[in-house]
Amino acid sequence: MKAIIISIGNELLIGQVVNTNAAFIAEKLNSVGIEISKILTVADDGEAILMSFKESYASHDIVIVTGGLGPTHDDITRTSVCAFFQTDLVSNDEARINIQQFLKARNRPWSDAAENQTLIPRGATVMSNPHGTAPGEFFHRDGKYFIVMPGVPQEMEAMITNFVVPYFQKTSSGKVILHRTLNTTGIPESLLAERLGNTDEILQGEKLAFLPSTGGVRLRITVIGVDRMKSEQKLSSIEQAIRVKAEKYIYSIENQSLEETLGKLLIEQHRTIAVAESCTGGLLADTVTNVPGSSRYFERGLITYSNQSKHDLLGVPKELIEMHGAVSKEVAEAMARGVRTTSNVNIGVSTSGIAGPTGGSAEKPVGLVWIGYSDAKETFAIKLHLGSERIRIKERAVQAALELVRRRLLKIDQ
Amino acid sequence: MKAIIISIGNELLIGQVVNTNAAFIAEKLNSVGIEISKILTVADDGEAILMSFKESYASHDIVIVTGGLGPTHDDITRTSVCAFFQTDLVSNDEARINIQQFLKARNRPWSDAAENQTLIPRGATVMSNPHGTAPGEFFHRDGKYFIVMPGVPQEMEAMITNFVVPYFQKTSSGKVILHRTLNTTGIPESLLAERLGNTDEILQGEKLAFLPSTGGVRLRITVIGVDRMKSEQKLSSIEQAIRVKAEKYIYSIENQSLEETLGKLLIEQHRTIAVAESCTGGLLADTVTNVPGSSRYFERGLITYSNQSKHDLLGVPKELIEMHGAVSKEVAEAMARGVRTTSNVNIGVSTSGIAGPTGGSAEKPVGLVWIGYSDAKETFAIKLHLGSERIRIKERAVQAALELVRRRLLKIDQ
Repeated sequence: MKAIIISIGNELLIGQVVNTNAAFIAEKLNSVGIEISKILTVADDGEAILMSFKESYASHDIVIVTGGLGPTHDDITRTSVCAFFQTDLVSNDEARINIQQFLKARNRPWSDAAENQTLIPRGATVMSNPHGTAPGEFFHRDGKYFIVMPGVPQEMEAMITNFVVPYFQKTSSGKVILHRTLNTTGIPESLLAERLGNTDEILQGEKLAFLPSTGGVRLRITVIGVDRMKSEQKLSSIEQAIRVKAEKYIYSIENQSLEETLGKLLIEQHRTIAVAESCTGGLLADTVTNVPGSSRYFERGLITYSNQSKHDLLGVPKELIEMHGAVSKEVAEAMARGVRTTSNVNIGVSTSGIAGPTGGSAEKPVGLVWIGYSDAKETFAIKLHLGSERIRIKERAVQAALELVRRRLLKIDQ
Repeated sequence: MKAIIISIGNELLIGQVVNTNAAFIAEKLNSVGIEISKILTVADDGEAILMSFKESYASHDIVIVTGGLGPTHDDITRTSVCAFFQTDLVSNDEARINIQQFLKARNRPWSDAAENQTLIPRGATVMSNPHGTAPGEFFHRDGKYFIVMPGVPQEMEAMITNFVVPYFQKTSSGKVILHRTLNTTGIPESLLAERLGNTDEILQGEKLAFLPSTGGVRLRITVIGVDRMKSEQKLSSIEQAIRVKAEKYIYSIENQSLEETLGKLLIEQHRTIAVAESCTGGLLADTVTNVPGSSRYFERGLITYSNQSKHDLLGVPKELIEMHGAVSKEVAEAMARGVRTTSNVNIGVSTSGIAGPTGGSAEKPVGLVWIGYSDAKETFAIKLHLGSERIRIKERAVQAALELVRRRLLKIDQ
């Protein structure tokens, strides 16, 4: 079944609010085999809304509408629904009971606005709203579905979870849509594509999407079938085929971040870590400590911005800085070794680079970053060029530092 | 002029990615008097894309397309553009130079993928891409505009900011839409609204939007008129009226962040700063060092996650930690004083709290955070309750710490 999502609201069209509702609905409906073929945002304008209803209903099996059901004057979705189905508003008892319960639980009195919210288009099934007063409206006519929900995320989410998803789970056509996402880092999209080569053979008619972001490229496999077990087997075999070609770069699947992956490895291998940061300015420690429970393996972080602090806190010899400069292989190595030994951990990591916009030279341009690594057996540093934008340089350096440690823990070559 | 945004990408239709691009574009075009009447998301499907181009071009003056310009096989926007304009792809010299510069800055070699990215539809003006290899495409035909950009937010944002907005600013129709945003922090939306009272008199028919986020509430004033000078005067008088009621909480206007505001103050007052972080785990230092030139005032940051490191690096007595706990007024003060004296700066700031999800107790629940402050004249700490979500607790604690220093520098009461 093909579905369209229609989001109604001027706040979306002036960019004041990001449309997170559409993504939520799409993901949930996908999980019960419903494909979203379009997402449309229209203004709080009766004519525009009605036209979008007509066009969408003609070309889709399911129309999902959010927004414009509240009690204020700019909310005109309900009357547009009536115009579309050529029906009128009637006071609904189920809606009334829900609204009464909602207000009672909050010690709020009945009001004209509440009375008004009991009115729904004749013929609609009510979807109750545990988080607000506007009821949802569900139509099933001529083999098609027309579903209307409030735009407040929490209210819409409850209706999708409690009503819409269970409904389509029961009546599902048997189609199975499965996704799996492999998260890679340390390789640009174009080189990853080259490495995978012609994917037609691997994919056997299924789909693979490349999703690049600052942290790396995610590979999303999609398998559509009728038999769940067969589809899952196909998904796994595609995943394995991709892993054969790019295993080294894949740090996790689905939503697990690189720092979570690294945290798990450190706990498994009973290792502790400390960081010494220059150009990343605290972002490396911040990223590591975003993981709940990171205090089990993260001992300390030193942001040694000044040369004095590199000397005082890490024991980096002043002559070394004078001879090679603070942004150098030698200093990055000394920082990593210094933070490891002074804080008595297994692994020390360091960053030193030129985040810009000023401070670059021909020899050491903006974007040059050294990542240092030190454990009981080895100390070394790698050199990277990470672009020209301060914040991106910091982000990429952090990602590279985390990935460096991951590969050392797994004994993967750099 | 009426515009439509078309976002292309399966990742949007399966809910894997939230469409933040549309909101960004809408807000920017609004600022130059262009109204967005629709936002449409379509699949990576040649036929669906072409049909959306035809329908949109027929009913709008400006069509803005994002997504599907990358080098991999699922990116088919470019060929759809050619089909729509009945033209072919040609290798473009300007695009070639941009891509060469981009790769050179990153020490990456020329490749087939790079060569492929020099191809753009005949007749398009190139919008250069400072953050990637895919050029943007700009068409102006028959009084209409057709604009194609990559879907990677950073790349699209650069093209909007550097090319599209300046272009339409020059050719704007004479209607003046002015916005001014006042950034507040340290006061919730409801209390800020109370403080401003009935705004009808202040606004004289113009608009005020409350935009809450983790960092604080932004107040956006919008004035629409025909005479630029009169509109600007009106904007200023509304701003002044708001300042009379809420000056203390307003740390900047437009896009200046709290850390930039603070950096300017520190430079003006010739002060240096160092930070000692526990619960914020590096985010405070990271935020301070996101500002270019912050090395002028930021000396060092110590992320003392373990009690041992609080003792070793900051000289916090072990007995103090045993007596009051690491999350306490006493330890926060000792940390702030310790980092100030050991690093020889004017101002020391510290954070100590329970970021969760575990580690809370009845007496010290998750979300409890102490912010310590120390300069030559005074040392103290303030106590905050910052919710229950780890990342938000870190963000709010950082914002509160920065704001604490701003108010001390300006001698504003807490």
